[in-house]
Amino acid sequence: MSMEHPGPDLRPLPQPYLLFLGDVTERGFAKTALGLRDWAPDKCVGELALPGATVTTGLPPMTPAEAYAAGARALVIGVANSGGVIPASWRASLVEALEAGLDIVAGMHMRLADIPELRDAAQRLGRQLIDIRVPPANIPVATGRKRSGKRLLTVGTDCALGKKYTALGLARAFVARGVDADFRATGQTGIMIAGGGMPMDAVISDFEAGAAEMLSPDGGPEHWDVIEGQGSLAHPAYAAVSLGLLHGSQPDVFVVCHEPGRTDMLGTAGYQVATVEEIIELTLALGRRTNPNIRCGGFSFNTSALDEGEALALMRRESARLGLPVADPMRGGAAFDALVASCLA
Amino acid sequence: MSMEHPGPDLRPLPQPYLLFLGDVTERGFAKTALGLRDWAPDKCVGELALPGATVTTGLPPMTPAEAYAAGARALVIGVANSGGVIPASWRASLVEALEAGLDIVAGMHMRLADIPELRDAAQRLGRQLIDIRVPPANIPVATGRKRSGKRLLTVGTDCALGKKYTALGLARAFVARGVDADFRATGQTGIMIAGGGMPMDAVISDFEAGAAEMLSPDGGPEHWDVIEGQGSLAHPAYAAVSLGLLHGSQPDVFVVCHEPGRTDMLGTAGYQVATVEEIIELTLALGRRTNPNIRCGGFSFNTSALDEGEALALMRRESARLGLPVADPMRGGAAFDALVASCLA
Repeated sequence: MSMEHPGPDLRPLPQPYLLFLGDVTERGFAKTALGLRDWAPDKCVGELALPGATVTTGLPPMTPAEAYAAGARALVIGVANSGGVIPASWRASLVEALEAGLDIVAGMHMRLADIPELRDAAQRLGRQLIDIRVPPANIPVATGRKRSGKRLLTVGTDCALGKKYTALGLARAFVARGVDADFRATGQTGIMIAGGGMPMDAVISDFEAGAAEMLSPDGGPEHWDVIEGQGSLAHPAYAAVSLGLLHGSQPDVFVVCHEPGRTDMLGTAGYQVATVEEIIELTLALGRRTNPNIRCGGFSFNTSALDEGEALALMRRESARLGLPVADPMRGGAAFDALVASCLA
Repeated sequence: MSMEHPGPDLRPLPQPYLLFLGDVTERGFAKTALGLRDWAPDKCVGELALPGATVTTGLPPMTPAEAYAAGARALVIGVANSGGVIPASWRASLVEALEAGLDIVAGMHMRLADIPELRDAAQRLGRQLIDIRVPPANIPVATGRKRSGKRLLTVGTDCALGKKYTALGLARAFVARGVDADFRATGQTGIMIAGGGMPMDAVISDFEAGAAEMLSPDGGPEHWDVIEGQGSLAHPAYAAVSLGLLHGSQPDVFVVCHEPGRTDMLGTAGYQVATVEEIIELTLALGRRTNPNIRCGGFSFNTSALDEGEALALMRRESARLGLPVADPMRGGAAFDALVASCLA
């Protein structure tokens, strides 16, 4: 597998991207492509869909050769399917991309280099097959040494409720206010958006905190790393990921992400979503170990299921009750400005 | 690597063992062999040392052929060296063992199957090379489903201070009292002693709690799994391992292991060993998530650095202060009986 990229190891991914949509017909399966369009539009030159696809990013359709001519340096597989496999019907397009001079970036369960056609073509053409779910080989055991610079981590009352988008929104808002900040990605879509990062859930447990230390190295005294959270300290399956990330990130500030109205934890039977108070308590109790000055900056509510009036009223009520700003980054507004100010305070 | 065992996957290891000591001259490097002699004497038929070795387990010296004739079915590499490598000078003996009909069991950094001589001999002879640091491939994501039976987990204020020996001592004491109990191993020496288990620190983070669920399956209502703890919830490098193990183990009872007098955490700069109170608080706060009835059964102190009088006085004082039994399993006595009774209460 000499042609396989050894993992993200914080080397930048080849960019910009051609977004590959396969034959996708459900928006939910195209969330990587749509996330890239929303959060990294300057890194996306166009899209490539197969006959039968009904979802579009709205970017111009391009062949691999046209995309290369427009500056693209990688084709990103921007869709998932239920098995996480790369179907035979996609392979001709992927080989065509390699032939056009594009590397391929993917984050599916099936490894690119395990497909002989792709491995052989990449080898023949000197192209990279980059699997962003593969962590770097050289992750050290964490030292716990306090690093310079400032850090914010998004944490959650459950999985999949807005930790990535909250971190992206906060990093963008920090930069808009003239603050030196980087978004640090910890999951596959985030890594594609950032152009690098650490696939925290794929790291061997003994090195989990070390991986988080590697992801956010020493920074300037006024620099902020805004780190994408993973899982939840209260999730019976994924809390190990969350705790290694918390310890290694040494955050000065955390923002609790929550989806009002969600009752059951994702993928578990009989577990209620944690309360924001429980998550504050656990995050402080555990986070203090590597950063005694850790504090809660406020709350990010995913209110996509509510109408504007309900959402704003709920967030005002919760902000008054909790004594800290509550905002939905996708709605922005004064509440979000208050959250940003509280984090930077 | 078709001859390589896929990992412990809770299949029993081939037993009994011939303990291989290499050319070891420091007792500390022979702790796996010595641990097997102490905790699994019925699984050890003899030892094999090379010229120059000065450490002995006291078991009869045997050639591989003699060991096979005496019933042995595996040679266990019972020594470590600083690099975790298998030196060239050992290889003839290891090939001789394969030829005599023994499988080889090891838990070093260097993989047995990466040594061509061993791989080829194992393939030719139909023998297994079993690397107990390799977790099984089929670990599921945790479900959090409450399992039947009872569970005890040893937890620690730091690494390497007696969690394995405490679990072994408690499991042995439970059985001696007529209680149906199994020791569940989570590290390499423990796995060799138990003849199976789960190398928790080598599991990918996303599956850490799932691995712990797999390790201690549903049991009879009066059956106890006594689970070897790993790391510490307060350790800046290894807490992810500890939390996945805690969530997946769903312990009814935990015992806090501590070494009085140790000041700094292992392998970190500037981190003090946690207090037993801190570990109780964190273990209760996090463990309640998967077992609301979790309780602290008492304390296991590693008093090997103290003389008998000092040790007993300290444990009496601490027991009075903490309101629960404090014992050193290696000293036994009334204090240990009280700890066992408190765990079973």
